[in-house]
Amino acid sequence: MSFELLKYTAPDFTQKMFTEAPDAKWEPAPKDKVAPVTYHSTTIFPEYFKVNGNWLLAEESRMDCVAVYENGKIYVREFRNLKQGDLVFVGRTENCEDGIYVYTNGFNERGSSLDDSFAFRLGRSRETAFSKDYDHLYELLEYEREHGNILWVMGPACAFDADSRAAFSKLVMGGYVHGLLAGNALATHDLEGAYLKTALGQDIYTQESRPMGHYNHLDTINRVKYYGSIPKFIEGENIQDGIIYSCVKKDVPFVLVGSIRDDGPLPEVYANVYDGQNAMRDCVRKATTVICMATTLHSIAVGNMTPSFRVLPDGTVRQVYFYCVDIAEFAVNKLADRGSLSAKGIVTNVQDFVVNVSKGVKF
Amino acid sequence: MSFELLKYTAPDFTQKMFTEAPDAKWEPAPKDKVAPVTYHSTTIFPEYFKVNGNWLLAEESRMDCVAVYENGKIYVREFRNLKQGDLVFVGRTENCEDGIYVYTNGFNERGSSLDDSFAFRLGRSRETAFSKDYDHLYELLEYEREHGNILWVMGPACAFDADSRAAFSKLVMGGYVHGLLAGNALATHDLEGAYLKTALGQDIYTQESRPMGHYNHLDTINRVKYYGSIPKFIEGENIQDGIIYSCVKKDVPFVLVGSIRDDGPLPEVYANVYDGQNAMRDCVRKATTVICMATTLHSIAVGNMTPSFRVLPDGTVRQVYFYCVDIAEFAVNKLADRGSLSAKGIVTNVQDFVVNVSKGVKF
Amino acid sequence: MSFELLKYTAPDFTQKMFTEAPDAKWEPAPKDKVAPVTYHSTTIFPEYFKVNGNWLLAEESRMDCVAVYENGKIYVREFRNLKQGDLVFVGRTENCEDGIYVYTNGFNERGSSLDDSFAFRLGRSRETAFSKDYDHLYELLEYEREHGNILWVMGPACAFDADSRAAFSKLVMGGYVHGLLAGNALATHDLEGAYLKTALGQDIYTQESRPMGHYNHLDTINRVKYYGSIPKFIEGENIQDGIIYSCVKKDVPFVLVGSIRDDGPLPEVYANVYDGQNAMRDCVRKATTVICMATTLHSIAVGNMTPSFRVLPDGTVRQVYFYCVDIAEFAVNKLADRGSLSAKGIVTNVQDFVVNVSKGVKF
Amino acid sequence: MSFELLKYTAPDFTQKMFTEAPDAKWEPAPKDKVAPVTYHSTTIFPEYFKVNGNWLLAEESRMDCVAVYENGKIYVREFRNLKQGDLVFVGRTENCEDGIYVYTNGFNERGSSLDDSFAFRLGRSRETAFSKDYDHLYELLEYEREHGNILWVMGPACAFDADSRAAFSKLVMGGYVHGLLAGNALATHDLEGAYLKTALGQDIYTQESRPMGHYNHLDTINRVKYYGSIPKFIEGENIQDGIIYSCVKKDVPFVLVGSIRDDGPLPEVYANVYDGQNAMRDCVRKATTVICMATTLHSIAVGNMTPSFRVLPDGTVRQVYFYCVDIAEFAVNKLADRGSLSAKGIVTNVQDFVVNVSKGVKF
Repeated sequence: MSFELLKYTAPDFTQKMFTEAPDAKWEPAPKDKVAPVTYHSTTIFPEYFKVNGNWLLAEESRMDCVAVYENGKIYVREFRNLKQGDLVFVGRTENCEDGIYVYTNGFNERGSSLDDSFAFRLGRSRETAFSKDYDHLYELLEYEREHGNILWVMGPACAFDADSRAAFSKLVMGGYVHGLLAGNALATHDLEGAYLKTALGQDIYTQESRPMGHYNHLDTINRVKYYGSIPKFIEGENIQDGIIYSCVKKDVPFVLVGSIRDDGPLPEVYANVYDGQNAMRDCVRKATTVICMATTLHSIAVGNMTPSFRVLPDGTVRQVYFYCVDIAEFAVNKLADRGSLSAKGIVTNVQDFVVNVSKGVKF
Repeated sequence: MSFELLKYTAPDFTQKMFTEAPDAKWEPAPKDKVAPVTYHSTTIFPEYFKVNGNWLLAEESRMDCVAVYENGKIYVREFRNLKQGDLVFVGRTENCEDGIYVYTNGFNERGSSLDDSFAFRLGRSRETAFSKDYDHLYELLEYEREHGNILWVMGPACAFDADSRAAFSKLVMGGYVHGLLAGNALATHDLEGAYLKTALGQDIYTQESRPMGHYNHLDTINRVKYYGSIPKFIEGENIQDGIIYSCVKKDVPFVLVGSIRDDGPLPEVYANVYDGQNAMRDCVRKATTVICMATTLHSIAVGNMTPSFRVLPDGTVRQVYFYCVDIAEFAVNKLADRGSLSAKGIVTNVQDFVVNVSKGVKF
Repeated sequence: MSFELLKYTAPDFTQKMFTEAPDAKWEPAPKDKVAPVTYHSTTIFPEYFKVNGNWLLAEESRMDCVAVYENGKIYVREFRNLKQGDLVFVGRTENCEDGIYVYTNGFNERGSSLDDSFAFRLGRSRETAFSKDYDHLYELLEYEREHGNILWVMGPACAFDADSRAAFSKLVMGGYVHGLLAGNALATHDLEGAYLKTALGQDIYTQESRPMGHYNHLDTINRVKYYGSIPKFIEGENIQDGIIYSCVKKDVPFVLVGSIRDDGPLPEVYANVYDGQNAMRDCVRKATTVICMATTLHSIAVGNMTPSFRVLPDGTVRQVYFYCVDIAEFAVNKLADRGSLSAKGIVTNVQDFVVNVSKGVKF
Repeated sequence: MSFELLKYTAPDFTQKMFTEAPDAKWEPAPKDKVAPVTYHSTTIFPEYFKVNGNWLLAEESRMDCVAVYENGKIYVREFRNLKQGDLVFVGRTENCEDGIYVYTNGFNERGSSLDDSFAFRLGRSRETAFSKDYDHLYELLEYEREHGNILWVMGPACAFDADSRAAFSKLVMGGYVHGLLAGNALATHDLEGAYLKTALGQDIYTQESRPMGHYNHLDTINRVKYYGSIPKFIEGENIQDGIIYSCVKKDVPFVLVGSIRDDGPLPEVYANVYDGQNAMRDCVRKATTVICMATTLHSIAVGNMTPSFRVLPDGTVRQVYFYCVDIAEFAVNKLADRGSLSAKGIVTNVQDFVVNVSKGVKF
């Protein structure tokens, strides 16, 4: 079975509900960062706004933002990025009553896919059968390597184990990684693995605790800061392996955003988390498949900024696939109820997941 | 690196602590199923009892039982199997004070292995690096296929997924399974998978819920009971795949023991759990590697009855390896503190684990 | 707000769907323990079977059993309890097509309660607000003390802590416990707590590990077996506190059923788990509120045998309340999708839960 | 039993190991934010540095930082706060070899407390007995209300339930809260609870989902931003209850630090997480008891910056108590191995924990 995207069926705007709908209304933002009281909040689905009798799609959408009309286009903007006077769409209905249409089933034409969707909403657990999800994912990734953009979101656990670290590096080198979002810890422990063969002082293959190993991650950060940047550290210390090393070699963009848990941080890490959100969303805007692994913090952040669709340069609308992989059902199911065909949760140890993927796809 | 067992160094009984120790004492059991008040309770380690000046090893040991002297040998017996008058060793010391010696480090001569042991005692988590454990396990299983006896203990999750079910069947057919301990649910859902392609009514590959699928496991049990036994059901319904099917084809013994959660049960299931314990221990007596997967109930039961060593027919003493695989740290670490070099916990989804093992070993 | 049961509205059998329905059919069981191929499987809801033109309610129902017609009444029977020739209802429809009606919303007349039901089906988590559930439970228990029958199902954790053990004893003495279902471990560790002030060798108040404490639970069992029964042990050793002690003093029936994990077992423990199931169901038949705490094994077993309703001696039908309390969402939500208004899950440590209940109800 | 702090016994510097030790060495930081290669990294314990023959205590310590000599005193400084030329102590030994002494058992004189310490290091689980921990905590809090400084660290779950929200407010009003550390979500949902009676759109008492409730937290943030600050929102909207409201009324300082998961954020939230860390540590410097609840992110952040001791204005050294409360063992045990007498983990739902505390202490 070869992989095929579901086709998007645009709404039929000749229907009465659309032709008789009023134009959508907007009001100016009363202050910077403040929306008008009855602002319309966006979702992960395609949303159309009637402007001068025409239905305009908000092309780069995300959850829990506002829609702003600017230069004949609709921008989906975070509240914190609003400027006083921005024209913000208002109205909280979703079926044309206020000239706004939230289109939840544009990819639904194939009956068989309903089950997937339903299953996901039911919640995934350690007892769910994941065989088909794996098979589907391998096909999807092979397709996306050629035609899409695969964005990975990663917690530090991926760097704690020799095999999963090698497997992810192989995916990077093989073209299966178009972007990486993570925090200071993932990069620190991955570089520690390359520099000193440990993660938090434990050998990443044998699990042995190294003498004075609790210095290892601090020594790594201190050394990177001495060089001034990760690429200079990689060159200066002749680093030859790992997740971050592979991204640097292959020019895969990575965005590292800070948290209050950080030691260091590494020079590339965003200190301002909202600047960090902007940089993350810039990656998400290009992504057609997003895979979040072993990080509740980053997964929820990215889940909120990932829509269920993407408008391609030729104007066609395609699905965005979203995976959340974690050993805890609680984390997986926090992201579950997105009501989207293309969202899937997998409950397992991410070490195994990454190794499986690296063995399942073609190189 | 080719696999090698650690060598057992018997205690040096010419040492003063042994030569000057008194003979061990016993007292008759006052009633059936009742031990004398100061009974000695056994452990997973080799234990020697001084009888008429000679140190006798209790050959087939287990935790939390008593040692009985009978016909010149020492039997490690469950309280419930005691008969009035059985000669039960008494004394609660472990270093010869009462003529009893509990030998905790007979396999410890190689310094390098201490780290393994230490790491295990520290607890395993989703963030532990498991690469070496997997590599070690593959070597161990290849060794045991030729020279040992591999006993698997399994919860129902293994039967809920098409790939893990196929992977385990392959292990059975390939000679990597010498015995299987499970409950009614594992066998029921595995047979349901063979008979109706579902587990609890959900397709084991696509996850789709089948119409009236909640009847499927009951229909399966009802049909097996109609035939009178699992082998007759397999023959009568022309079953061709699955865990239980493979065991039947390869004459691999399996012991199914009941619980209060059971529907049915299947004809082969022990209704009396203590008879079931006896049957399970009969399998454990032969085992040299035990792998418990996704079942707290059975894992703890088997953990309690598995010693850290085995006396081979030629009289040599070898290690028994014990693995506990579960997605929950709580379950894995319940079994962790066995203080034995050869006990290991792996925290992951057992579906991935079984598939990994089937890909990691030679066929 | 004082507590009030929802009223049951019986189906209106004068409706066409009932009057035009055929009589239900039965077939004889072909063998002992085997149902006819198209047997009808029961649910937790009231089910009516049309016999000679009259709709008969299966009064004492449970999940996943068959309905047997005998002496003008309908008995809901486990497959294992079928005798060859028993008249088993057949047909797998639920809306009168085969003369069988499964009535899922007899208690639904009050709109406000729909939300409760919906919320429960959505799953409960550590982030659910439980304040109202607690308040409702206290009112319910006060009502049930006078008018109902409260059955508790308990894992060993309840006996591991001094306060929760004392709190539950207080509930027993105060009349809030009409029955107790548990395993060998709960009783063993509770009696260990009374006899030696420890659970598994740790002080139940200070957490201190006692020297040789690993003998404590075995010593307790051995001593009980010496006396021959729990009541004789309580008398002989002058036991004065604890869960089991309180039940014995107040003549509260308890059913202890064995598992393969047991040491011992205590004399009162059922060795045959299906005899144990029968004894448990005899308690469940009387229960109007069931509270399962910290035991997946027993909770699922009891959940399967507990219907959503009870027929009182005067013929009225009332709700049965079912609570599942566990620290793991996975365990709570396994029992969640019962589709019943009166089923609720609470995610917390059962120590806190029991103490809360003992402080929340009147004495 | 009335509460008493353990006494601190300073090292006996007349001992040979101290008198014969060399002076500690320092080296200048080679660049801003970069330490000399062999920097000494600090711990949670009191550490003494020999300077000109005198042993100086690093008074305000924390984990994984460097010690800087400045104006005759020792400052424990984060790497990111280093300036080029800062004099950083070097040497990685802990027993005077390099003139540095890490003093791990200054509070250890009372034998009885060793057990507590040991128990904690063994890990806490859902089956640990917590009665004594609760009792001890109530006494501690009553003592600290008069003599210490109680700092609370809180995840959003505390604001999701009516009773726990009311309980914490009562603790604030009663003087049991001297500072609060949290993120944008806790403050947002608590204010949503006050403003609209929901958390994430669900009623915080009845769990009912409100129509359009997914707008509620965004409306709350938007309204606070309209006012320009939390206090102005409280005044303008006449807010009368809740966690944040109580802190504002009682002038309890709170520090809110941002993360990539945030909507909004609220005006008071730190966008720069390292500025946020500085503000958090300023609170920690005053704290004598720290209680972390239901937030892995904030708990680990605060755990890293909290030493095991505090130097009081009169120069005496006292213990700092550290609690971590979470429903997940994984989270609790991440913070467990601090090797400190005064660190404790409690595994439960924080709703119950907060209510318990509010009922257990005097008002």
